[in-house]
Formats: sequence, C-alpha cells, structure tokens
Amino acid sequence: MIVVMEPNASEGQVADVVNAITRAGFNVRRSGMDRVVLGVYGVGQAPEPELIAGLSGIAEVSVAGPHYRLVSRAFQPEDSRIELGNGVVVGGEQVVVMAGPCSVEDEETVNRIAEAVAKAGAHILRGGAYKPRTSPYAFQGLGEEGLYLLRQAADAHGLLTISEVMEPSQIPLAEHYCNVLQIGARNMQNFTLLRELGRSRRPVMLKRGPAATLDEWLAAAEYIASCGNPNILLCERGIRTFETATRNTFDLSAIPVAKSRSHLPVVADPSHGTGVREHVLPMARAAIAAGADAIMVEVHVEPEKALSDGAQSLTPPMFQRMMAEIRDVAAAVNRGL
Amino acid sequence: MIVVMEPNASEGQVADVVNAITRAGFNVRRSGMDRVVLGVYGVGQAPEPELIAGLSGIAEVSVAGPHYRLVSRAFQPEDSRIELGNGVVVGGEQVVVMAGPCSVEDEETVNRIAEAVAKAGAHILRGGAYKPRTSPYAFQGLGEEGLYLLRQAADAHGLLTISEVMEPSQIPLAEHYCNVLQIGARNMQNFTLLRELGRSRRPVMLKRGPAATLDEWLAAAEYIASCGNPNILLCERGIRTFETATRNTFDLSAIPVAKSRSHLPVVADPSHGTGVREHVLPMARAAIAAGADAIMVEVHVEPEKALSDGAQSLTPPMFQRMMAEIRDVAAAVNRGL
Amino acid sequence: MIVVMEPNASEGQVADVVNAITRAGFNVRRSGMDRVVLGVYGVGQAPEPELIAGLSGIAEVSVAGPHYRLVSRAFQPEDSRIELGNGVVVGGEQVVVMAGPCSVEDEETVNRIAEAVAKAGAHILRGGAYKPRTSPYAFQGLGEEGLYLLRQAADAHGLLTISEVMEPSQIPLAEHYCNVLQIGARNMQNFTLLRELGRSRRPVMLKRGPAATLDEWLAAAEYIASCGNPNILLCERGIRTFETATRNTFDLSAIPVAKSRSHLPVVADPSHGTGVREHVLPMARAAIAAGADAIMVEVHVEPEKALSDGAQSLTPPMFQRMMAEIRDVAAAVNRGL
Amino acid sequence: MIVVMEPNASEGQVADVVNAITRAGFNVRRSGMDRVVLGVYGVGQAPEPELIAGLSGIAEVSVAGPHYRLVSRAFQPEDSRIELGNGVVVGGEQVVVMAGPCSVEDEETVNRIAEAVAKAGAHILRGGAYKPRTSPYAFQGLGEEGLYLLRQAADAHGLLTISEVMEPSQIPLAEHYCNVLQIGARNMQNFTLLRELGRSRRPVMLKRGPAATLDEWLAAAEYIASCGNPNILLCERGIRTFETATRNTFDLSAIPVAKSRSHLPVVADPSHGTGVREHVLPMARAAIAAGADAIMVEVHVEPEKALSDGAQSLTPPMFQRMMAEIRDVAAAVNRGL
Repeated sequence: MIVVMEPNASEGQVADVVNAITRAGFNVRRSGMDRVVLGVYGVGQAPEPELIAGLSGIAEVSVAGPHYRLVSRAFQPEDSRIELGNGVVVGGEQVVVMAGPCSVEDEETVNRIAEAVAKAGAHILRGGAYKPRTSPYAFQGLGEEGLYLLRQAADAHGLLTISEVMEPSQIPLAEHYCNVLQIGARNMQNFTLLRELGRSRRPVMLKRGPAATLDEWLAAAEYIASCGNPNILLCERGIRTFETATRNTFDLSAIPVAKSRSHLPVVADPSHGTGVREHVLPMARAAIAAGADAIMVEVHVEPEKALSDGAQSLTPPMFQRMMAEIRDVAAAVNRGL
Repeated sequence: MIVVMEPNASEGQVADVVNAITRAGFNVRRSGMDRVVLGVYGVGQAPEPELIAGLSGIAEVSVAGPHYRLVSRAFQPEDSRIELGNGVVVGGEQVVVMAGPCSVEDEETVNRIAEAVAKAGAHILRGGAYKPRTSPYAFQGLGEEGLYLLRQAADAHGLLTISEVMEPSQIPLAEHYCNVLQIGARNMQNFTLLRELGRSRRPVMLKRGPAATLDEWLAAAEYIASCGNPNILLCERGIRTFETATRNTFDLSAIPVAKSRSHLPVVADPSHGTGVREHVLPMARAAIAAGADAIMVEVHVEPEKALSDGAQSLTPPMFQRMMAEIRDVAAAVNRGL
Repeated sequence: MIVVMEPNASEGQVADVVNAITRAGFNVRRSGMDRVVLGVYGVGQAPEPELIAGLSGIAEVSVAGPHYRLVSRAFQPEDSRIELGNGVVVGGEQVVVMAGPCSVEDEETVNRIAEAVAKAGAHILRGGAYKPRTSPYAFQGLGEEGLYLLRQAADAHGLLTISEVMEPSQIPLAEHYCNVLQIGARNMQNFTLLRELGRSRRPVMLKRGPAATLDEWLAAAEYIASCGNPNILLCERGIRTFETATRNTFDLSAIPVAKSRSHLPVVADPSHGTGVREHVLPMARAAIAAGADAIMVEVHVEPEKALSDGAQSLTPPMFQRMMAEIRDVAAAVNRGL
Repeated sequence: MIVVMEPNASEGQVADVVNAITRAGFNVRRSGMDRVVLGVYGVGQAPEPELIAGLSGIAEVSVAGPHYRLVSRAFQPEDSRIELGNGVVVGGEQVVVMAGPCSVEDEETVNRIAEAVAKAGAHILRGGAYKPRTSPYAFQGLGEEGLYLLRQAADAHGLLTISEVMEPSQIPLAEHYCNVLQIGARNMQNFTLLRELGRSRRPVMLKRGPAATLDEWLAAAEYIASCGNPNILLCERGIRTFETATRNTFDLSAIPVAKSRSHLPVVADPSHGTGVREHVLPMARAAIAAGADAIMVEVHVEPEKALSDGAQSLTPPMFQRMMAEIRDVAAAVNRGL
C-alpha cells in the first residue's frame, strides 16, 4: 500500500498516519519530494486502506502493483542512485563498468585481469568464488580464497569488487571482501537468500532469472527492499527462449520497461546475454543506447584456458575496444563513462 | 565416470578398481545385476579413465552424460523403486497418489481434506508449510505449525506426508514430520539445498524448474545422488512457454524421455501443469498413460477460500472421480492404483 | 456476434432477426437444439448488437471471444462430428487413426506402408505430396504424382486419404485425390489459404502453428468456418519452446482446453509432437487419455531410408503395438477404436 | 555447395567448373573479389562435390550451412548493399528509416503522416494495404486502393514505399506501386510466396517469424535468393517468448549474429519488437548501436484512432525526437542518417 499525502499536509498529519500503520504491525518507509509518500509493507501481510480511514491530509491511497511497492516508480518517482564506494554511483550520469573473470582461478591470473581492466577504465572487478554450476562435477569455485584474491587484485588496481553469494552462510565473508553482493540468475527466487541480503549493509545486484517475467524480477527485488536494504541493482542477463544461436536471448527491452516501472538502476550483462565473445561488443553498445546504467562483462587474459565461460570472455584488447565504443555511445545519449 | 566390469570379474579385481578410485579421493557406488557397474563421483572433480589404466577385469569405461552419472540409465539399467514408508513404493507396479491443499491453513481444514483424500484412495497427504511466493506480501505458510498439523491429519487417516523445504535450516523439522521432502521448482538449482538434501535420510521429490531442460533437471538430481541420497523422485509440473491458456505448459513428453535417460521414478503434477481445475482430470489420465509413476494434485474442501492456488484445486468429489478415472487408465497400461 | 433466441421464439421472430442481419450485409449461420442460436459473421467487419435492437424473441446477444464465434462452444454447445467418408467420423465415440509416411516417395513404398497400417486397423492414409521444407535444397515432394500414388495405395487397402495443401492452386487436385485436406503448422496463419479452404467441400485439418496460442489457433479455424466450411479438425503437433530433448513440446493440455472453448474435434500428432520414435507410443496413449478424437502418426517400412522425418517414423510392428495400446486406453476412457 | 577457385585460376578453369555444374542441372552464381567463388544451387536437390571431382583450379569445396548458401558470408564475404531507388541504399554507411502507419486508412491520414515523416527525415513510407489479421473479423486493409494512396502520399513528399504482400496474386500490383515488397512474419515460411518473390524485380524485406530461429530465417531468405532475387533485407521484429511486458521479445542480438552469418543487411522494427510507444525510442537507439542498417517504425497522426496497432505507433513529435536521437547514436558508431 502506498499513501500519498496532500502537498500541504502537516508533519502532525503524517505522524498520525504513520502511527496508525505501525500500531497495526506494518512498517513504513518515507519518500517523496514535493509531497510525502509513505510505503507501507510487512512480509506476509497485505495492509488494507481501511487502516487509515478517516485520517486527514491524505491525497491518495494506492496499491502499486500486486507484487512490489517500495521498488516501484509510484513510490519513488526519481531514479535511485546507488553509492557503491570510492565515489562510484550507479544510476547517475556516469555509466559504470564491471569486468573480470567468470571465476577467480589463481592469484596471477586475477591480477593480470585486474590490471588490464583497470587500465582500460573499468570501475569494478567481478569474479566468482562460489560458482553455481549445472553439474556437480564442474569446477565449483575457490570459496574464501577466491574472495581474498579478488579483493587483493582489486585493491592493487584501485577497483571495487562484486561477487556472487549462493547461500546465507556466505554473506558475512562476502560482505567483508566485496563492495557489492550478487544474486545469480538461478537464485532470483531463492527467497531465503533474498531476505538475508535484505538485511545486509552492502548493495545487492539481483540478476534476472532465465524464466522470470519483469514483474517477478521486481517482486524479487521487493523481497530485498522490504527487509530493509534499498540499495539494489537490477541486472538483465538474457532469458531462455527457443533460439539457440545465442546462449540466452538478451532482452534489452527489459531495460526501458524496468526503468519505467521501477526507480532502481539497471545493469546489462552482454556476456551471459549472448554467450559469444564476438557479439558482446555490439550488445554492450546497444545496452548503453537502451538506457543501461552499468555494463558487466567477462574478461580473461587467456579465455581458451578459462575454467568456465571461456567462449564469452573478452580478451583485454577487445575490452579496451569495447570501452572506447561504449564511451562514444554513452556520449550520444548524454552520459559519461 | 562409469566402470563396467567383465561378467566374470572376480571380487578381487573389483576391489582393486575400487581401491584405485578411492585412493584418488573419489567415491564409488556399486550397481549392476549380471555384471558389476561402478559409478565414480566426487563433487567438483572429474575423474579421468587414466586412474584405473592397466587394471584387469574391466569391460568398459564411459562417461554417461557430462552432467549426470549416478542417476543415469547407463549406470543402473533397471528402474529405481523408492520406498516411502508404510509399504508405499514409487516406481513399481502401483501408481501412487499424493493429494492435499496447496498450503496447510488450519487444523480443521487440513483434517477435512485428509479425510476426503484418504477415503478416495490417496496414499500421501501433501501440504505446504513453507511457501515460496512471488510476492513478499503473499501468505508465506505456517512454518512448523503447518508441518505439525499436516502430520496429525495424515496420521489420523493412515497417510504419509510430503512438504516443501526451502532452505537447509528447515530440513531437520521437515525430516521429523514428513516422509518425503520436496524441492520446489524455483529451487531446482539451489545447489546448497540440493547438497544438504543429498545428506538427508528421507526420499526427496525434485520438481523441474520452469525453464529447466531435461538434462539440467537430471543434473540437479545428480547433486542429490552424489552427496549420498539415492532416493529421488523427479516431478514434472510444467514449463514456462508463450502459451497463457494454461498456467504452465505441462510437458508430458518429459516423462518417457526422463525415464529413458534415468532410472528414477517420475511424478506428474497436473495441478501446476495446467493451473485450471477443469483440466486436471484429463491431464492426470494422460500422465498415467504416458508412464508416470505417481500423481500429485491439489485438493481443497473449499477451493474458493483457499489462501493460495484455489483455481487449480480439486473439490473432494472431483478428486474421487479422478481416482476412478486414473484407476481405469492405470489398468489399461498394466498398472494398479 | 451470437444471438440466442428465446426457447419459445417463433419462426417469424427468427426470420425477422435473420433479415435484419442479412440486410446489413452480414451472414448468418443457425445452430442450437432447445433454442435457436444465430452466428453472425462477415469477413472484415464486426457486427454491432444495435443491428437487431428492438426485435422480439431475443434472449441474449453476445460476442463469444474477440476472435472466433462460429467455432466456439458458445455458438454450438454440442461436439461437432465430422464425417470424412466411408462412415469414418471424427468427434464421436470412435477414435480415428491416420498413419502413413511423411512424404509419398514411390509406388512400392507407399503401397507397403498402406498395407501395413490398414492391417493394423488405421482408417486414413497420410502422406505428403507437397512438402514445406525449411531449406530450398531439401526434397520438396512428388506433387500430383504423389497424390495419385497415395490415392491408389489407399484405395487398394480400403483407406481414406489426407495430404497437405500449401497454396490455393493445389486445392483442386488435392480435392480430387484426398478425403481430408491438411493445413500445415507453418501455414496456420496463411490467411489466403485459410479462406480458400473455407470454400472447399472437403473437411480441413488445421495444424497448430509452433508459436500459436490456443486462441490464435481457434481464430485461424474461424477464418475457414467464416468462409462457409464448418468441417474442421484441429491438430495439436507441439509448440516451440526452449526444450530440445524433443523436437517440439507436445502441448497435450491444449486438447482439453481447445475442447472446452470449441466444439471442433481435436487430432493429436505425437510424431511431430516428440520427433523421436521411441516416445511416440507413450504420447499416443497419453493423447487418447487426454481426450483426443484422433491420432496421426508417421509410419515407414524403412524409416532409416525415409526422405524426411525418418527419426520419428514408426516401423509397422511398432505401429501395430501402438494400435493395441491405444485401444486399451480408449476403452478406459469409454471410447472405441 | 560453394566452390572457391584458386587465386590464380584461369577463366578457362572457371568455365570448366561452371559447365560441369550446369550440365548436371544445377545453377551457378558467381561472387568473390580476390578469387572466384561459385555458389551452386537448385531447388529440391543437393549437389555433391563429386560433380567436379578432378577439375583443376579449385581451392576448396564446402557446404556453407545445410540450409543456406547464397545468402551466407562464406559465399559473399562483403556486405550486400541493396539499392532501393532514389539513391537510397540499405547496407552502406547510411542508416535508412522507414516510417508510416500500420495500415493505410484514408487519403488524408496517410498524407498527413507522409508529410510528417518526410519532414523529419524518413526515406521510405510504410503502410499496409493487405493486412494479415489474427481474427477474420478485424480490418483487413484497403487492397489496391491502399497501395495507390500510399504511392500518392509518398510521391508528394519525395519518399519511397514499402508494403506487405500476402499472396502471389498481389505481387504485380505491389510491384507497380511499391519500391520494396515486404513478407510478413506470419508468412516467413510461406514457401510459395518466397519463391514467387524470388522471381520479382523488386527488393524484398523478409520479416523474421515469431518462432523462427536465426538459421530458419536465413533458409527462408535462401528460398528467395535461389529463385534469382539477391536483393533481400532481413527484418528483426521480435520473437515470441514467455514475457508479456512487451508484445514480442525484441531479439537485438539477432542483428550481429545474422550479420556474422550472412552478407544481407538487417532492418530493425522496434514498434513490433516492443508493442509499446514509450519503449520504441530507446530500442530504436539500441538497434542502431547493435549494427542495424535500417529502422522501421509505425507513425500515426492520431494513434488513438488508428484501425490497428495504435498502442505502438509514434506521434509525429515522438518520431522527430527519435530521428534526432538515432542520428547521434549512428554518429557514435560511425554511420550517417
């Protein structure tokens, strides 16, 4: 439930509404610029407008989508700007770039990759330490050692870090080593994980599930927001369709649609979106042109030797070229890089 | 890796092979009737045939699918029969029926439903206590109380129980109250949960994810098997496609295909497969005709008041009619009910 | 627009309504048992209820679905029974079986196949003479010679014939040689072809397009019906999804859903539905259990030498086994074969 | 089959190869810059390399994809540039823009639209005269009158024309009135129509079917090419998936993938790709950034009154803004508008 107050509502009137809501056991989050907007929520319950019937100063009471409220444009009309650290902000004028290996494999490799992507202008080093793999017999990641190596390599080159968390028990370590915690596509509806990350102090990047509709994706983000963490990045990485020429079908229209329904920033991942190195560059350009706030790509110094996802990893020279190309496209849509 | 021994291999030769494998840090599971078949596995590693080069008595070494071995037909040619308790076996001559509410709502309701489905011949009472819901504001289940009420109702009417587990911390309670633990469709690739249930002593029913291919489903089952739990039921409940006339597209061909690739029994869930009460009966019949070993359906005494999934819940008279109809179809394919 | 007359409406009142409609340039088709039901239609126009405002004897005026009327259950509540010739009726108690090669290849082969399927109890010989092929370099069919050979082989063994028509110019020859004309999946929305077959005197079997929703399929049938041909068989043959373990995803739920929305009979084609010989039998059984009125399968005496679709063609012994199995399932759902 | 000659092969050697091929009943098309490349084709047949065994001067014989040859990059490495008339070329430096109403409705409306799009810089006026509609009761187009009005409006404002052809009988009129003939998505595998347009002297724009893979799309283009018409534009307009937030899922990755496999230019249609006016602009920008050679959009002076597709039609001011925005993006990828 969203309550929009009159433009001239007094703080006393706002307080009366907030009190009525909290007395009934719900939480309230306050938003709005010209007028106060109150987002009412509480896991497992649906607050009814009757709750505040008869109170004064209320302009409008609405339910913004059956599944999400706090992340909706109705609740917050202006874009969210998520501060990641080091002055890097996603959702503002600047396009942010996250790059790195699919998995952290060893110290030397992650360092060489970090050096290459930092030199080309990336802001954040990505790299998996806990890997969700289709087969139990595939490489499952280095665990804490991977997180440690990622952090070391990032610090050595002035980068922030992002890495995937697969279960609640990994959160404390990941919070220690990473600036942003990633929820992978397969876990988009792992509601336990969503709730736990809703209690984290770190920004969370939520990848869209391969069979998730836009609204299910936003409802998953709402799980995080409703547990108290408003710092959420959405990440489009392709959906599953009948087409096999690409690993997934990169649904770029999801960027403007998500941004029209939600105030959250959107990251685009053309590496998973296409699965083919050669097509990552044009799709990175297209994502920026469609309005993406950040790009995440896989980069490896020796893609043919990568333990996972080698076919979609860029080489450092390709990454450098990508940076030059998306800088031009960003400028064409009035953004910087 | 799968090692097929010569028909006349001695126990000493088998022991030599097993020793070579275990010394290298892998696990071995033994199968086979006329000849010994050894399944070699170990999470995160891929055993190489070189491991046993030069040993005698070996007829054939193969890799049965890149993603699954223990659950493959190559490893175990005969059908698995999973004993659930009370003499109820899935995968044998008898078709097994699981029925009950989507969620356990209150004592009286679950009791009335249990009575109705037991009278009509069901074997297992289903009912959710922990509910994965798209929206954080939807009913999330009663938790332990739900499990307790489910067990009470089942015991009162001679039924076994099945309920969904959403995270590892819920496993001990679920093991206490339930005969079978269910992994929901959204958690099919929650690898942490798969591994933990691989260590459970209870049979596990693994629902197919809405965007999962057959092989990804079997690879998920392999996670469970490779952690030591061979008692796995596969459950087809529909995949996500462009068609909106049904809630999901019930992929009945998955039944014969899964059974040709794996020895595991397959359960069919026409309630989620169609999402529409009227279509559950014909699709339950079709599932039996296609070779399903068990049927799971939602039944509610007052579907219009159900807290979740009312539109797809059968009334007790419809369930009774379904039982009569699938009994006839089961007989036509030489099975009992 | 559908007009339901009062139960006791006089013929004069009916005539007044019909006259008002036809004067406005629309066509009327009459249906109904206890009461007269008038289906109002006319390509390219949407008749408005105002047309008959003020006339007496009218119980109800409705628009049955935006896209189809004549083929809807609202217009005709009882099942259509389509007479194909030789006393073979689709849509009644008897399940009808259509079998034969994908393409007619040569006289001897089609004869041997006809003999085999007739002996096992098939009613109709199928075989393509005009083949829609993805590649311009694949075998495109024998044309009229194929139709002639099909007819000869069918006549020699007491069978009816069905063959695909790809364009209006092929209709006269196909009408000459065939009892039923087939519209292939790729042509489901070839509206020119639909209209021309709407003027044919032969029954038409309309295959569902690989990306067509239920309602688009029924709207395509409405094109045929609205041009004057009510003898339409719907044929489910699988839709295109992400799953590649089968050639298509055989959407068996479409059978009960189509039958709930339309009075037309439904044929199921498990050969295209699965694309794999081994899975045709269980899915033929499942289709009958789900309520299919007829089964169409591909049969070849030497599948490995077939010019097209060999992998999904049954051998004669497999077809014989299928007939025995679906006879049992048909009996279980109170139908004969 | 594609035959690549040695760089220094003599004309006599080339002639020998050509003769061997044509004597066997196949057609040859010649391509190549540094060295001669011969595309061998013939509907319904697959030429075997044995045909030219023993001849001299041949460097390499290959089969470029099972389904297409003439449209493949293997046959013609350089981009095709298709001349449409008035000096407008698709596939070169300049991005081309096609705009206009979904259907031609009346003289005044099409004229106002033509004036608006010409003023904003469009090159080609689009507008349907023959409309493929899901329902037989929807507006079916004005037929020849529509083509006439489209031509008049285009001529009055210096534009070329494009319109859809639904069946072979419409080709002569369409050739008379239009510079480019369009094959709609539903007809992508209407092989009769493809072959007839393969004999047309006009360039053909082939829309991708909603369930067509990349390779099926190129195979459909091959039908046109193999009948003699090399002037083909591919048009991506979205595929059908589970996502309903947009009318189709606009598969922009198809642009770089199609261009890597084929030398044909690619047009992008963000109007059908998204189905929502607000999202057309960002997706038009994205399409240019991904490498599209042309953009096709629907524009209407009064979208809310349009007889079809009003929700996705841009208003003239939105179209003007789109032109400014895609001009900037085109410059960023080194192209003009």
